[in-house]
Amino acid sequence: MTTGAPTLPPDLQTPCLVVDGDVLDSNLVAMASAARDLGVGLRPHAKTHKCVEIARRQLALGAVGLTVATVGEGEVFAEAGVTDLFIAYPLWAAGRRGSRLRALADRVALRVGTDSSDGVEVLSRALAGTEAEVVVEVDSGHHRTGVAPALAAEVGLTATRSGLRVAGVFTFPGHGYDPEQRERAAGDEAYALQVADAELRHAGIGTGLRSGGSTPTAALLDPRVLNEMRPGVYAFNDAQQVELGVAGWECVALTAAATVVSGSGRTVVLDAGGKVLGADRPPWATGYGRLLDHPQARVIALSEHHATVAFPEHGSPPPLGSVVRVVPNHVCAAVNLADLLVVTSNGAVVDQWPVAARGRNA
Amino acid sequence: MTTGAPTLPPDLQTPCLVVDGDVLDSNLVAMASAARDLGVGLRPHAKTHKCVEIARRQLALGAVGLTVATVGEGEVFAEAGVTDLFIAYPLWAAGRRGSRLRALADRVALRVGTDSSDGVEVLSRALAGTEAEVVVEVDSGHHRTGVAPALAAEVGLTATRSGLRVAGVFTFPGHGYDPEQRERAAGDEAYALQVADAELRHAGIGTGLRSGGSTPTAALLDPRVLNEMRPGVYAFNDAQQVELGVAGWECVALTAAATVVSGSGRTVVLDAGGKVLGADRPPWATGYGRLLDHPQARVIALSEHHATVAFPEHGSPPPLGSVVRVVPNHVCAAVNLADLLVVTSNGAVVDQWPVAARGRNA
Repeated sequence: MTTGAPTLPPDLQTPCLVVDGDVLDSNLVAMASAARDLGVGLRPHAKTHKCVEIARRQLALGAVGLTVATVGEGEVFAEAGVTDLFIAYPLWAAGRRGSRLRALADRVALRVGTDSSDGVEVLSRALAGTEAEVVVEVDSGHHRTGVAPALAAEVGLTATRSGLRVAGVFTFPGHGYDPEQRERAAGDEAYALQVADAELRHAGIGTGLRSGGSTPTAALLDPRVLNEMRPGVYAFNDAQQVELGVAGWECVALTAAATVVSGSGRTVVLDAGGKVLGADRPPWATGYGRLLDHPQARVIALSEHHATVAFPEHGSPPPLGSVVRVVPNHVCAAVNLADLLVVTSNGAVVDQWPVAARGRNA
Repeated sequence: MTTGAPTLPPDLQTPCLVVDGDVLDSNLVAMASAARDLGVGLRPHAKTHKCVEIARRQLALGAVGLTVATVGEGEVFAEAGVTDLFIAYPLWAAGRRGSRLRALADRVALRVGTDSSDGVEVLSRALAGTEAEVVVEVDSGHHRTGVAPALAAEVGLTATRSGLRVAGVFTFPGHGYDPEQRERAAGDEAYALQVADAELRHAGIGTGLRSGGSTPTAALLDPRVLNEMRPGVYAFNDAQQVELGVAGWECVALTAAATVVSGSGRTVVLDAGGKVLGADRPPWATGYGRLLDHPQARVIALSEHHATVAFPEHGSPPPLGSVVRVVPNHVCAAVNLADLLVVTSNGAVVDQWPVAARGRNA
């Protein structure tokens, strides 16, 4: 056994996702305390959990609002009573998406990402006359979306000319999802936000928001620069965070309960495949997930309904019919595949939470 | 443009999955004809589409029944009136799963996979007194589940001793998902089924079912050995089938409609990420999916809500705000992420089909 964690409750219908509510709570409290100690606003990314119950707990612990990735996620959390949302995505707000965004802006304090003058002009038509603000996305080295930090003012000026208020700048240091690059990514993040913020100030726009953060870089962020952080995964953690060295096994709050259905020699097959765990596998990962109670085992192959797990030479693989706990590589992908999370405390089922924003990708 | 296919209907809420109903119909008819010409029963795997509407069409075209992967999928299709189901999976039918399986057996003609004497004993307790049959899974070279062909009789004899009827043997030649191994996998499949069938006959058990097949090996199967085939992906096809050389672009019936939200040089970012396309990427694939109308482009990176697409030196990448059609690498994974499929004919929306068995993994 890896930890002293409670075992699974009996007669679960595997495969299913099980949340250890005690570990979850401890993770939420720890990040809230860390943000408070740093003097940085915590705006957790709700794309990880997509659960109203967890969002409410994050806000009760002092989060300044939630981050979401889509208008649909925003609609779900607004319906649940959340009043402050940041869509950290360069939305193209034309057509029906524009109308939906405006309806959201009429309902909550709303910030929306942008990384182009064309995009911000479309946003300005959707949001004209509302209190919504835009946040300029800058690329801090992940090279996905975002403008170069030195070009932040160009997008910001287009926004103000179009009648939109600019809150500041944000970035996602996604290259920190690499054991060799975490420290560098946190440094890049601070540098990019500092340059972009200076550009906005020089142009006389923005209200000084400098938002960054991810779970891998959360402990490394520079509070002299950042005044907001947006980690998501920390609520549950996953095999990636463990293999990155960001979280210990005792911080893993979500596992997939899976039954051993087949076996041969030192290999067994579980009934949780890619349709439960997600198929994410970064090049540095040791497999397609880990087993919480068998840290030496590796998930060497994954198909839709099968995970093939190899066990080390010593010890016995679990027998046919036994139920094991699989830690997904990327918990955001796993949660987005489930309709319900089974919530436990001390090994007993205490609740079931709907994944309210599951599949709300538009 | 790759094909003369119709363009997308206007004002779709991207990202969403769009089915070209005309191409789907042509794919369904072609496989039904091929099976008829070979004299082999077609039992399509419904895990690909999870849609009642498509299952009905497959059965109307002569399918002998459906294949499913889980009890939950079986329940959905039984509820929709399908009367003949094969759960091609070595189920561990204990506890509530056993009760659900029995209820299914009381309702439809049911076959269930098994690959161990322990598993078949558990099955026999769940299915005692029903008309359900078991099918022994053999490993034809994919090395996932299934016993060695020479050991099929051992499991079969345990089944008959436990009071279960044995229909025959099945295999999944999954190693055919490799451009170098398709022909070999089809040969391995026939050989494994032939050996396993001979073992059962020698032991005096079974009624002669020899079931195999996958979309990559469907055109190569040996009708002297196989009397049933279970392809699934052929209904829609996907980037894997195109890159394997199994299907042409004109046979791709499902795409993800995605909006260009960001761009830099010859690279653009789309709003369909792994939460829409799935994250499957076999080592031989050229990326995380393809663009139907831009065959030279490659999806070079994928995150939850972003696909990064690189365009070749010649031609212009599509501008911000334009909508493109992404062909997922593995359509089964993409469909399992969606609640609805938007169905078109000649470029107009004609229907919306619920993905009725989405997420029914248990």
